Amino acid sequence: MKLYDTALAVNPRRVRIFLAEKGMDVPRVEVDLANLIHHGVEFTALNPMQRTPVLVLDDGSVIAESVAICRYFEELQPEPNLLGEGALGKARVEMWQRRVEFQLLLPAMNAFRHSHPGMKKREIPQIPEFAEANKPKAVEFLRFLDGELGNRTFIAGENFSIADITAFVATDFLKPARIAIPSDLIHLHDWYARVSARPSAVP
Amino acid sequence: MKLYDTALAVNPRRVRIFLAEKGMDVPRVEVDLANLIHHGVEFTALNPMQRTPVLVLDDGSVIAESVAICRYFEELQPEPNLLGEGALGKARVEMWQRRVEFQLLLPAMNAFRHSHPGMKKREIPQIPEFAEANKPKAVEFLRFLDGELGNRTFIAGENFSIADITAFVATDFLKPARIAIPSDLIHLHDWYARVSARPSAVP
Repeated sequence: MKLYDTALAVNPRRVRIFLAEKGMDVPRVEVDLANLIHHGVEFTALNPMQRTPVLVLDDGSVIAESVAICRYFEELQPEPNLLGEGALGKARVEMWQRRVEFQLLLPAMNAFRHSHPGMKKREIPQIPEFAEANKPKAVEFLRFLDGELGNRTFIAGENFSIADITAFVATDFLKPARIAIPSDLIHLHDWYARVSARPSAVP
Repeated sequence: MKLYDTALAVNPRRVRIFLAEKGMDVPRVEVDLANLIHHGVEFTALNPMQRTPVLVLDDGSVIAESVAICRYFEELQPEPNLLGEGALGKARVEMWQRRVEFQLLLPAMNAFRHSHPGMKKREIPQIPEFAEANKPKAVEFLRFLDGELGNRTFIAGENFSIADITAFVATDFLKPARIAIPSDLIHLHDWYARVSARPSAVP
């Protein structure tokens, strides 16, 4: 199998951390988004959405979307589980993964894409007012998350999960998105220190 | 268990259709969003995101987020499977479910929330320019989906899945979002007819 990856992009990093947690290694092909390789004929045939990451299996099957790729790896090698255990455990991880994705990662992405000069040609039309509107939403969710993390070690419970991966990657993305993390969010800062100390916290 | 539901909202409908496909029945509590019941103390304690649906188990455990609730039911009663079968099958369903969610349902929601007069007090600030920007994105994805549906019966393959549920609910939501479906998308129209003819196609 082959993983089409982009070193500097947010979503591919989720898969890289997921693989590192599993102790799995997959051959990678770097796709240079800056040079619009993902808009070329060859890559578009793999993923018409023109996004990385993409996983191609030995029989030619293609899986796009980072969470779908993670699920494939979880099925191949269930332990350590990162998508939860048992019906309630799996549902809880999915709930938190989605909350983090929609209330933190998405607002951060929106803030970045609608304000960064380098995105002018990719986010059309760029709407700076929308970028600004997303920033307080991300901060409001960080504050909520801080309260939750006062009661447990990781985002979905006592075990590290894909929800932590998404939140970690999203938190790192707040800087390019120009969203400041309030310094009084002690539990959030502690959680961030715990997660970034893991060997899986690859760039 | 108890499902906090809203008859007229998009996401709760996904769970209702999922349950109907499974032949499962769960006691429901209607939450009236128009009267802001979901902003009250009692409901906010269940789901701090102030959204329906929410599933409360007999032991008091709470699962929010429609896809997380669906996953719980899939684990409880695996057949007929709606989240795919086998590692590749599950990954494919997740890939399509996410494509439909991010490229069709989300743009439709954005178009609605940022333009409908009734959303002025819930989407702050409402940015009509952003609503307009989302409309061609949804149509572009519909066109892509039409091409895909020329080759197979359902969105993720030959079996009906959660990706069809999300796409069906999103397609119905295009009308309130004021996004017109191009009439030349024959395969999409045929797929819509197939899905809406299923007994599960509850309002």
